[in-house]
Amino acid sequence: MSTNIPKRPTLEELISGIIRGDRVALARGITLVESKLPSDRALAEQLIDRLLSKTGKATRIGVSGIPGVGKSTFIEAFGVHLTRLGKKVAVLAVDPSSKQTKGSILGDKTRMNKLAVNPNAYIRPTPTGSTLGGVADQSREAMLLCEAVGFDVILIETVGVGQSETLVRDMCDFFLLLTIAGAGDDLQGIKKGIMEMADAIVINKADGDNIPVVKKTLQELKQVVHYFSLPPSGWVTQVTTCSALLGEGIGELWILIESFNEKMTANGYLAHQRSQQNLQWMHQKLDGLLKQEFNRLVKEEVKDLAAKVENRELNPVTAAHQLFDLYKKKKG
Amino acid sequence: MSTNIPKRPTLEELISGIIRGDRVALARGITLVESKLPSDRALAEQLIDRLLSKTGKATRIGVSGIPGVGKSTFIEAFGVHLTRLGKKVAVLAVDPSSKQTKGSILGDKTRMNKLAVNPNAYIRPTPTGSTLGGVADQSREAMLLCEAVGFDVILIETVGVGQSETLVRDMCDFFLLLTIAGAGDDLQGIKKGIMEMADAIVINKADGDNIPVVKKTLQELKQVVHYFSLPPSGWVTQVTTCSALLGEGIGELWILIESFNEKMTANGYLAHQRSQQNLQWMHQKLDGLLKQEFNRLVKEEVKDLAAKVENRELNPVTAAHQLFDLYKKKKG
Repeated sequence: MSTNIPKRPTLEELISGIIRGDRVALARGITLVESKLPSDRALAEQLIDRLLSKTGKATRIGVSGIPGVGKSTFIEAFGVHLTRLGKKVAVLAVDPSSKQTKGSILGDKTRMNKLAVNPNAYIRPTPTGSTLGGVADQSREAMLLCEAVGFDVILIETVGVGQSETLVRDMCDFFLLLTIAGAGDDLQGIKKGIMEMADAIVINKADGDNIPVVKKTLQELKQVVHYFSLPPSGWVTQVTTCSALLGEGIGELWILIESFNEKMTANGYLAHQRSQQNLQWMHQKLDGLLKQEFNRLVKEEVKDLAAKVENRELNPVTAAHQLFDLYKKKKG
Repeated sequence: MSTNIPKRPTLEELISGIIRGDRVALARGITLVESKLPSDRALAEQLIDRLLSKTGKATRIGVSGIPGVGKSTFIEAFGVHLTRLGKKVAVLAVDPSSKQTKGSILGDKTRMNKLAVNPNAYIRPTPTGSTLGGVADQSREAMLLCEAVGFDVILIETVGVGQSETLVRDMCDFFLLLTIAGAGDDLQGIKKGIMEMADAIVINKADGDNIPVVKKTLQELKQVVHYFSLPPSGWVTQVTTCSALLGEGIGELWILIESFNEKMTANGYLAHQRSQQNLQWMHQKLDGLLKQEFNRLVKEEVKDLAAKVENRELNPVTAAHQLFDLYKKKKG
């Protein structure tokens, strides 16, 4: 909107700006990692590489939940609570479906107006990547930049579309599923596999007339998680309640996450999980690049053979071998 | 053991043998698809391609459950019940961990001695693939051969090691999780994500003194599945009980599976699921081949860069790009 566009900062300016905690440099850095221009991509990688030693100090919390559970109200209440404790809080949104919004920064900020004006908070909307892989890279890199700037807690919100929860689960330390009482009643409530990813399931809207049904749901969900096998961390999924509206249960939740952090730091799981997440990120990125290259060379043939496989005219194994041989021939 | 080894059948002999329902030809065919010799691999693919039009008529049932739930007793009771209804039943085992047993055919058959001697049943132990992908291919191809021979029901047993349940889920129509009462009590009972894959959860050992605790577990598990979202098929995970020992609940379970089959045939989901499974198989196989080729060329570099990523010396995205560029250079 403004015609007074400041000149583009150099890589060195960006790096020093981010290290001294400058928000404008952060925003510029995130814009850079979200850029699709190949020249920007190369710069973005250098930026991340140079800042890597400054990252990793924040607590990374993923927040998932279907629409209607009050995610924005919750993140605002939780974020405000953390800033009162003296923490600097960054909120990132991951929503691979929001292509049309072109980064609805206004939308996100008006949803959380108390947090938006808080000097110790930073809200960044979804990057507008065209692919889930793109969104994944951009969100992870934005998170690293926020850490380099000095945020203590990163809240990563996901709307739960497609594979976005898995993406967020793979980039956070603690994964929180927000739900409401009776969400299971229509058998549509909680997406398959999400509950079992959660370190905590938090029943929101535990206020007023809701309280009896919240109590019932609390008991039921405790029963449900009781059936989950213990993960490698030894951490048992916790079920709690809160009222984001009244700010109740929010402080207790942060204490729970701190106790998770202490235990998982002591037993080495947190460091292990993060290094596994980094390795996984590398492999996913690599797979994506290989797949892209493969499709560039034999896309049409994949379609043809896939159709034959679907119609049971061709054994899937034979089809795979034929495609692989074609690929090897073409690259030559 | 015998020195009187019959000559190796030709491809044509194998095909005609399998089509006319010959068990020896079936065993030979399965041995062929399990072979790791490249020349055998080529023959195996031809065999499957030629028989493809004869496959797909069986009901494919996956059976999973941790050790101790009575899987063998259950499969024997269920298999014997099906043969009494005039069905021909094949039992395949999928256990990627059983490398050392070299195909414990004796072990599998003595575990199910009534079924082993039943002329309408066929028991085949785990193929001894070195990789999960290898076992996956071999098990799927063995299943297709069993269908071409004319089996009506294929029971695919998995021990639940590593990713074997997902593998079995991806090759069957109906996925059955066998459990026992109180299996959740030690929080180790049911592996994460497995319950939500199941079309039915069957509580075995519903006999004698167990009955009260089975009833309690039945109610609890019904509560648990109530929280799962509805899958695309519209089929709600059923929770039932049985006593494989006394043969109780076995007939009811088959009726349940038949009703699943009817509904999923009518709404088109069964055909859809199978064609998706075939496509997925092709893509998984292709990914495996690409990964193999990739590792052949840049294995050492992957190790080096992975170590740097683990130590936070290198951004995972940069590492992936470096590996990809190296690969492109090497493959020339």
